[in-house]
Amino acid sequence: MFTEILRNLTCETPGAIGSVLMGYDGIAISSHFLPGDDLDVQMIAIEYGNVLKEIRNAAAVLSIGEMEEVNIQTRRYRFVIRAITEEYFVVLALDREGNFGKGRYVLRRDNERLREALQ
Amino acid sequence: MFTEILRNLTCETPGAIGSVLMGYDGIAISSHFLPGDDLDVQMIAIEYGNVLKEIRNAAAVLSIGEMEEVNIQTRRYRFVIRAITEEYFVVLALDREGNFGKGRYVLRRDNERLREALQ
Repeated sequence: MFTEILRNLTCETPGAIGSVLMGYDGIAISSHFLPGDDLDVQMIAIEYGNVLKEIRNAAAVLSIGEMEEVNIQTRRYRFVIRAITEEYFVVLALDREGNFGKGRYVLRRDNERLREALQ
Repeated sequence: MFTEILRNLTCETPGAIGSVLMGYDGIAISSHFLPGDDLDVQMIAIEYGNVLKEIRNAAAVLSIGEMEEVNIQTRRYRFVIRAITEEYFVVLALDREGNFGKGRYVLRRDNERLREALQ
């Protein structure tokens, strides 16, 4: 179920490299990678999981509303990260020229399906 | 000079609340706020400055290229954050319905001017 959702959202996004559904504890539930790039999306999700926790905590302290989405752009990649539940988030990795807008859209669209699948 | 750039990019972005040019040490160089929202953009920039440092360090460790931009979306606000130099970053805060794409565009556009002004 998770794998199917991740496969679809990865394949539908031009320039996507892979996606991971992960717990804030750094344990991945499921992932889907396209062949071709040696980017370790799983390792990136683990590293950025800690950062997400801090963004979430800061949002609570600052009373600016619950964290929903974080995007990170580096010189080589883009990452669309979406909080699914209190415990899980999804990371979609794209190459620099990937369709960032489409990536954001598919993650928003599949948010509810992933949430339901987690219950 | 800084103030003028921040004023322009804030006023040009529909739904913008304010912008801050800040050091990773939490000291603001300049800021511009529009009246109406009681959001403390300066406090948010301080909180997220630490998070940015971690995102930057993680990018270095993971060899995924230098961090350029981070976006954070909460239930109430959107933040477009851009690394200007090794020491400084800029935060543009928008309300939830603000024009996120325009905000990203103006920060990219004024990146070089801010960098030059910092030298």
